This record gives sequence, C-alpha cells and structure tokens, in this order.
Amino acid sequence: MLEQLKERVCDANVVLSTSGIVIYTWGNVSEFDEKTGYVVIKPSGVAYDKMKPCDMVVVDLNGKIVDGNLKPSSDTPTHLEIYRNFSHVKSICHTHSIFATAYAQAGVAICPYGTTHADYFAGEIPVTRELTKEEIAQDYELNTGKVVVETMKGEISESIAAILVKSHGPFTFGSSAEEAVYHAVVLETVAKMSYLSKTLSPTLSRIPSYLLDKHYLRKHGPASYYGQ
Amino acid sequence: MLEQLKERVCDANVVLSTSGIVIYTWGNVSEFDEKTGYVVIKPSGVAYDKMKPCDMVVVDLNGKIVDGNLKPSSDTPTHLEIYRNFSHVKSICHTHSIFATAYAQAGVAICPYGTTHADYFAGEIPVTRELTKEEIAQDYELNTGKVVVETMKGEISESIAAILVKSHGPFTFGSSAEEAVYHAVVLETVAKMSYLSKTLSPTLSRIPSYLLDKHYLRKHGPASYYGQ
Amino acid sequence: MLEQLKERVCDANVVLSTSGIVIYTWGNVSEFDEKTGYVVIKPSGVAYDKMKPCDMVVVDLNGKIVDGNLKPSSDTPTHLEIYRNFSHVKSICHTHSIFATAYAQAGVAICPYGTTHADYFAGEIPVTRELTKEEIAQDYELNTGKVVVETMKGEISESIAAILVKSHGPFTFGSSAEEAVYHAVVLETVAKMSYLSKTLSPTLSRIPSYLLDKHYLRKHGPASYYGQ
Amino acid sequence: MLEQLKERVCDANVVLSTSGIVIYTWGNVSEFDEKTGYVVIKPSGVAYDKMKPCDMVVVDLNGKIVDGNLKPSSDTPTHLEIYRNFSHVKSICHTHSIFATAYAQAGVAICPYGTTHADYFAGEIPVTRELTKEEIAQDYELNTGKVVVETMKGEISESIAAILVKSHGPFTFGSSAEEAVYHAVVLETVAKMSYLSKTLSPTLSRIPSYLLDKHYLRKHGPASYYGQ
Repeated sequence: MLEQLKERVCDANVVLSTSGIVIYTWGNVSEFDEKTGYVVIKPSGVAYDKMKPCDMVVVDLNGKIVDGNLKPSSDTPTHLEIYRNFSHVKSICHTHSIFATAYAQAGVAICPYGTTHADYFAGEIPVTRELTKEEIAQDYELNTGKVVVETMKGEISESIAAILVKSHGPFTFGSSAEEAVYHAVVLETVAKMSYLSKTLSPTLSRIPSYLLDKHYLRKHGPASYYGQ
Repeated sequence: MLEQLKERVCDANVVLSTSGIVIYTWGNVSEFDEKTGYVVIKPSGVAYDKMKPCDMVVVDLNGKIVDGNLKPSSDTPTHLEIYRNFSHVKSICHTHSIFATAYAQAGVAICPYGTTHADYFAGEIPVTRELTKEEIAQDYELNTGKVVVETMKGEISESIAAILVKSHGPFTFGSSAEEAVYHAVVLETVAKMSYLSKTLSPTLSRIPSYLLDKHYLRKHGPASYYGQ
Repeated sequence: MLEQLKERVCDANVVLSTSGIVIYTWGNVSEFDEKTGYVVIKPSGVAYDKMKPCDMVVVDLNGKIVDGNLKPSSDTPTHLEIYRNFSHVKSICHTHSIFATAYAQAGVAICPYGTTHADYFAGEIPVTRELTKEEIAQDYELNTGKVVVETMKGEISESIAAILVKSHGPFTFGSSAEEAVYHAVVLETVAKMSYLSKTLSPTLSRIPSYLLDKHYLRKHGPASYYGQ
Repeated sequence: MLEQLKERVCDANVVLSTSGIVIYTWGNVSEFDEKTGYVVIKPSGVAYDKMKPCDMVVVDLNGKIVDGNLKPSSDTPTHLEIYRNFSHVKSICHTHSIFATAYAQAGVAICPYGTTHADYFAGEIPVTRELTKEEIAQDYELNTGKVVVETMKGEISESIAAILVKSHGPFTFGSSAEEAVYHAVVLETVAKMSYLSKTLSPTLSRIPSYLLDKHYLRKHGPASYYGQ
C-alpha cells in the first residue's frame, strides 16, 4: 500500500544522507498521507545505502503499524504528535545537523539576520523549553513531540518550517518529504550564516519585520512572485 | 540571438553551482552585451543541472524581454540598475555564499587584511546602507540596485569588484560572466580568511595602502606584471 | 594467523582514512583477540591506500611480535597498556582529528551539551593530565597509556568510549575495530557541535544527568530500544 | 634538461592543487638541484590541470632562465633569495591556504599547542615583520625573500619547515617538492587546530619544550624512531 509515497519517503531519506548535513543515520523523514490518514516513516536502524521503498513503515496516527516488516524509527511518537496537532504539516524531517544542533544545544533561537533566512522562515527559529525529568522518564519521544507542539502553538504555527528541540536538534516541516529535507539543508546553512554573523557582531539585531515579511511573502502565499 | 553570450552566461551559472560556494539555486549571473546594449541573464527558478543556453533570457536595459521563453531572474531589476550606472561593469554575479553573506548580515565591511584580498580588490569590500521601509515596500529589487549604485558612487567605482548589500549578500562584478563568478569564489575565500584573522586578533588594522596598491596594481591596470 | 581479524583491522584503518576526519596516516586502529590474547595492529609508516591485511602486525600483550613482517605502529605500547587494564576494551582507535585534537590541546573536557553526545558517551569526554618531563623522557608511549588508564580509573570506566590525551589527541574504544573507528568519527562530530555551542553561549552548562542517562541507556545496555 | 626534476615539481604543483588547501592557482612549488645549482619552478599563470612537466621553468640562482618557454612564477625572486641563504632548503612551497594565511594576516605566530604540531615543526611557526614602504615599492618579491631570511636567521633555521610572511601567507620547506607540499597541508591542518584551541582557551600556553622536542626528535634527526 501507498507504494508511491513509500518511494518518495525512501528517496527523501537518501537525499538527506547524501546532502552532507548528517553522518551515518542521524536523521529521519516521514510524510503524512491525507487520503488514508496514515504516516510513512523510515524504518529503525537501516543504513541509508541499503534502504529500499519496501522497507518503509506505514503507521496510523496512533502509532499502530499498518504495513511493513520493520520497526518504525524510534522517533515515530514525536512525528505523530506533531501530525495530530497541525494539519498543515505534511512532512517532518529530523536531523542532527551540526550548526542547527549547536544552536539547539545552546538553547539559542536562530535570529533572522538576513534575507536568506527570510526567504524560507517567517521569523526566528524557536527553541522548545527543556523537558522535565518526568517527561524524560516516561514517554520521552511522545513528550518531545508535545514540547514541539506547545512551542509552535505560541507562534503563528502555519508559517513555522523549522524548530529546535532544546539540548537535542532540529525538526523541519514541508508540504512533502522532499521539501522537509530541503528545509533541513536550508536551515543548516542559515544556522551557519547566523553563527558567523553573531560572532562577527555580537550585538547584532534581527532584521526589521518589513524586510523579513517582504522576502518571506515574495516566495510564500498568494502574493509570491519570486523564483531567483 | 546572442547565442555565444547565452552559452557563456549559462556556463558561468553552472560553474557557480559546482564551485561549492552556494547550495541549490542561491545565485545568478548576467552579462551585458556592448554591441546590442542587451543583458543576458539566468532564467528564474530553473535548476542549474537542467539549465541550457537556450533557457537564458535576453532583456534590454529597461527590463523588456527581447528574447527567451522563460521569466528572467527575479533579481533582474537589481542587475539592470547597476549596468545603467556603471559602463565598466560588464557582468554581475549575485550569491548567498556563506562567509560573504555573514558579513553582509552583520553589516561589517570586509577589511583588507592581507595580500590575497589586495590581489583582487582595491580596497575594503563596502556594505550598503539598510533599505528603508518604503524602498522595500515598492520596487524592492530596483531599490536594491539603487543602494548598490549609491554606495559605489561614494568609492572609486572603477576598481570595485565586489559589494555587500546590507542584510542580504554579495554582488561581484567582472569583465565577463566567467570573471564575475571567479570573483564570487575569491570573495568567499577572502571573507573566510578575514573572519579568521579578525577573531584571532580583534583589534587588527587593515594593511597599509602601499601594500594594498602594490598587490592590486601588479595584477590590474597598465603596470601589471603578475601571473603567480 | 588471525586472518579474519587482520582483515577487519585493515578495513577499519582504511575506513578511518576515507572518513575525512584525518589526513595522511594520522590515525591507527587495533583490536584484541580474546581467544589468543593477542592484539592485531596497523603497521608503522604504511600508506592506507597500499595497506593489505597481511601487513597487519600481531603482538602479544607485552609487545612481542607474534606474526607479521613489518614494525607495529609506534603507538603500540599505548594500546597495550589500555588492553592490559580494561578487559571491556576490545578495540582502540587513535586519531588526530581536528576538533577533538583542538579540545585535547586546550586541555578542555568535552562537556555533554546535547543528546547527540548522550547517544554515544555516558558523560563528559575526559582529558588526561599532562605527562611529566620524566614520563616523556623514558617510555613515552607506554606512559601515555598509563595516564589514559589513570584517568579512566577515576571514572566509570566501562562506559567510557572516548578519552583525550592532554596536548595530544583522542583515543576511542569499541567492541570491534569497526566500532572504535565509528566512535572516532562520532567524537569528532560531537566535538565540533560542542565547540559551536560553547562559543555561541560561553556559560552553557551540561545537560541534566537524567537526559544524559535516558539517551545513553536507550542505546546501550540491557534496556536499550533505540535504532533511529 | 633536468627532466625528472621537472616531472617531480610539476607533480607536486598538481598535488597541491588537488589537496584542497588552495583554490585556483594560489600556490607554487620549486625545487633546487644540487648538482647543477639550478632551480625548477612552476611557470606563471598556467592552470594546474593543463600544466605539463615541459612547462616547468629552469632558472639559475640569480634568476636567469636556463631552460623553458614560459615565464617563471612571479614569486621566483622570493624562492631564490631563500635558496641562496639556506643550503638545507631543497624545496619551497608557497600557498594562500586559509587558516595559515589568516594567521599571517593577523601577524600571530602559530604556537605549538600539541603533538601534531611537534611531529612536524620544532617550535612556533614564526611571522616575519611587515615590509617597509620602500621594500614594497622596489624589488618587492626579492624583499619578501629577504624578510623570510632575516626571520629565519634569528631562529635555529635548520629545523624551520614553515614560516608566515606578515599580511601575506605561508612558505613551507622540504627535502623535495613532494615534502614541501606535504608540509603545506600539515601546516594548514595544524593552523586550524591551533585556531580552535586558542578560541576554546584564549590563555592557553605552548606545550613544554621537552614534549615538543620529544615529538619532533622521534620523527627527525639521528634518534628518530617514529612511523605511526
């Protein structure tokens, strides 16, 4: 079932692994199928270079395996919690890419310092709060999803394409598995630019909102006109 | 028309994409044809690996499409404003390369700290002022060109091969599309060296003007003799 | 003798050289064979791209060459001292990878700032004390092993998969040559993330022990369940 | 004439270009032939990928072209001044590699912070003084050689394998063109490690001289025994 979607999710995971932003299996991608309400996700512990579309796992929104012979990614409960709460999120990519993870570890939101950021992200890339001892002890992966949801609900969630889980790493979203991975690569590059700008000029402020909106809106939404 | 120029501009865009200084389509190159007064520029939203010379767009200096089936790059009004003002600029390359963009975001000019810089750039790489709210709201791309022109007019414009647009990124110039891209790669490398020198020695001053001139003039102008 | 082990150790040395974390021959890998009590180690001064399994050297725990036509790695006395003291260490990888070595040179332990670190290392990556003048003058490589042992004995040694020798560089451990190299690559990536987090937020504290333990224990030991 | 040497010098220049430490033609290599007293050097302005052994230029120690159809590298007078003063220097490699050049620009000597440095360099990598206005105006390339010589004469010149020209970049030496390039790559890596150690621990001191000597002397000179 969902053969085409399995192929796309498998491809997106492979693209992630060859993008150069992660080593080994430090990432996973899933996509939500609106028709069935199921999620196709990377299996657990399979090397990218041996992964085939038929290895993808299909789960329902409660995590029940609907199709597939392998275990779904251990991060599946995080993905599902996000899908259950935000219908605009069609795909999720989680990575441990270096600069974005460094920001997550530092607990520092990625401030919009330029138009590269604004071309993709409607505001700063927020960081979740730290999970409590209890949230970590029990249902850790589910609770990771819950702090993501909690943080996004405090923002204009529709336009959030990336978020950092404190002490952990980034999650990016997209309208397809391909786009979620694309956003993961963009986020890593924007994080590196931000790091460099911030260390060059430690008191640097974010760009004015009218510049942020101009760039974001010329590429997103009904008034978009940009193709570079 | 202008088939050879289209080929060169297409090639230069491809060279940019394989140079490693940008990801995806984060750059564009154009070249001015003196004979016809037309500009050949990269089309909007075409992946580099699928781009063919016949996809290039020919526009006149007012932005009217003279030849081509695709939309010209969204940054075309910026390129044209620069060509209209500086007859010595034969080609323009715009990128979001990481270190140069980090400087642009920080609003910090790239100071000449060594002979690598001086071999290519006759002085510091200037940063434009921030565009106003009004300049961003209306004719944004044109106004981006206008602040570039405004900043260059305050300098000895003939020898400026690179400029940073505040909160945005670098534009480099050349006598051909190939050279403009070459300058973009050099700029990125020089920006990285400057970043490292500045963080090693935060109070570092620029090199003396006689060293700057020596290196610049042994490679540029009538008295040049350098080939490395 | 030990032909399969020689092949694995040879392969692991080649994987190290192609991992991108070291240049030239800046690393070596050995593995302990429980059955015979011998150690198979990289020969001294052989280029990775010409190294064959039959070039591997077999030594006993006192350093006597049991099999092989080449000299064992000059670092052999360091490896043997560690094997003699910790029966849980089955393989050792020594490198001069850039970020981990920079930490070793600075004498700064790599603090656990995030879950990437916690997925592999049960606590901070410790740094040995500096060797004394006497320890350096005589039996230097053996004494290097001794400070590693001394430092690990002050920790819960079973769970230490990496250690930094002050002013020198990292040693990583594993249940096989392949895993020791894997840990060397992970350590380098974690060191880079830590460097960036620390420079982004100089007063950053380590993650709480319950988060550290959660991540470490979901991947290691009897209660592990993680595969990503 | 000197066909074998031409081949080695050509090869070394190509190895430099593929080492990843320089872009374009930002480097040159020469080697001194003891028998004839001539120097074989890279020609000026020839791309590495088109360079053939027969393009190499043979000059005597006064710079007179003895063999070859092309102009020798513009940096030839610098190379020759060094050969004229130090008979132990058999080959010279000059690059604009990023981290080493950043140190040269900052005017900061590369301090020995660890054994990687000590394995190759007997002490700190010195920086020359800035050239005067007069030294730059007239015979600039020759005077560059003269400040190199002046700086090396203040040190134990026999063991200096690398030096930084203030505001310019590194020169490395070797017993052959291959070794000079090897030292250029090692220097770049050591410079990166030093930069990271220094920014991790700004008050870091150099390693004790007995550790420096131990590592240097186990790889160099009559008592050497190291092969890694």
